[in-house]
Amino acid sequence: MSLIEALNWRYATKKMNGEAVQQEKVDMILEAARLAPTSSGLQPFKIIAISNPDKKKELMPLAFNQPQIVDASHVLIFAAWDNYTHENIDEVFNRTNAERGIPASATEEYVARLKGMLIPRTAEENFQHAARQAYIGFGMAIAQAAMLKVDTTPMEGFDNAKVDEFLGLREKGLRSVSILTIGYRDAENDWLVNLKKVRQSLVDFVIEYK
Amino acid sequence: MSLIEALNWRYATKKMNGEAVQQEKVDMILEAARLAPTSSGLQPFKIIAISNPDKKKELMPLAFNQPQIVDASHVLIFAAWDNYTHENIDEVFNRTNAERGIPASATEEYVARLKGMLIPRTAEENFQHAARQAYIGFGMAIAQAAMLKVDTTPMEGFDNAKVDEFLGLREKGLRSVSILTIGYRDAENDWLVNLKKVRQSLVDFVIEYK
Repeated sequence: MSLIEALNWRYATKKMNGEAVQQEKVDMILEAARLAPTSSGLQPFKIIAISNPDKKKELMPLAFNQPQIVDASHVLIFAAWDNYTHENIDEVFNRTNAERGIPASATEEYVARLKGMLIPRTAEENFQHAARQAYIGFGMAIAQAAMLKVDTTPMEGFDNAKVDEFLGLREKGLRSVSILTIGYRDAENDWLVNLKKVRQSLVDFVIEYK
Repeated sequence: MSLIEALNWRYATKKMNGEAVQQEKVDMILEAARLAPTSSGLQPFKIIAISNPDKKKELMPLAFNQPQIVDASHVLIFAAWDNYTHENIDEVFNRTNAERGIPASATEEYVARLKGMLIPRTAEENFQHAARQAYIGFGMAIAQAAMLKVDTTPMEGFDNAKVDEFLGLREKGLRSVSILTIGYRDAENDWLVNLKKVRQSLVDFVIEYK
């Protein structure tokens, strides 16, 4: 299935049927998010993947009792860095240079400039920036799932602070930004499945300078 | 090409060769962004697509003279709503209900709750939220381009305020958030093309609760 066919096929599933998604497909969805490009290659986010039934049950009230939390096969919580620091920036460039077999001196100037830009900002500004990067990965995961005919529900309706506490995210320098449940639609009991997908027309969506 | 193959193939192209991307492919890239899911289906962003050479030349200094701006076939500027208002929320739901053939009363309660949540927030908070949605579309455009073997450079390095002024975005209730140049790599003159793609390992990237 092409990406455009997949994006037309998908919808924000409101009722899932409890069926498990094969591990191989889950791995492809995580891999697409992992490969997403991010600003300066920092990848300032992680995914918390919950398939444990008890853990999903505990999470459900923190997400306004949306039933997809328990009816999904996996709940993916996207969590962004709460700030940019010397430590987390250095970790990325040290690892990247090592994997590329290039010396630290090769990126020294770039890293100094990057730190000079990011570190003086407030933690909140940096978190907002990191959150945007997480949303690129969020999009990639949604796209990959749809191409595998795996249903998803992208969610922002949850109590971020409580989810952070539940998963101990702040201690890890992370803050939850969005949730993607993955599973299979229960078409008979989903009010949204048959409603037409509506988008701005391309003419309204794009302003062209030819 | 599968999505994962495409994401492994792509890289943030640093030098493009000036070749034009076929209109059919450009349209598919814009279409993928248009189909991206967004919070409550609001689609709070637009794309400004610049292929006009003079316009690209004028834009270049506002993006720190990055050569891809002029060497790309098209420069796509992603611009998010600067706020959520009664007007822009109503426009979406009126249009959506009309296309779905359902009465306004069907979404009245939902819209009231949504407005109750969004409208009391500051314009800055709402813009940040809209920007995240734009990044989902940004990701879809990057994915679609790569699947077509069209190169892209995702960019945040530009003077947002000057770009907004250059394109008259604030008068349209928009603020620029990111740029995607689309075109073809000039592999001989691109320092990044042969460097290994580095990402966190899947084990570091994903925290699992099985």
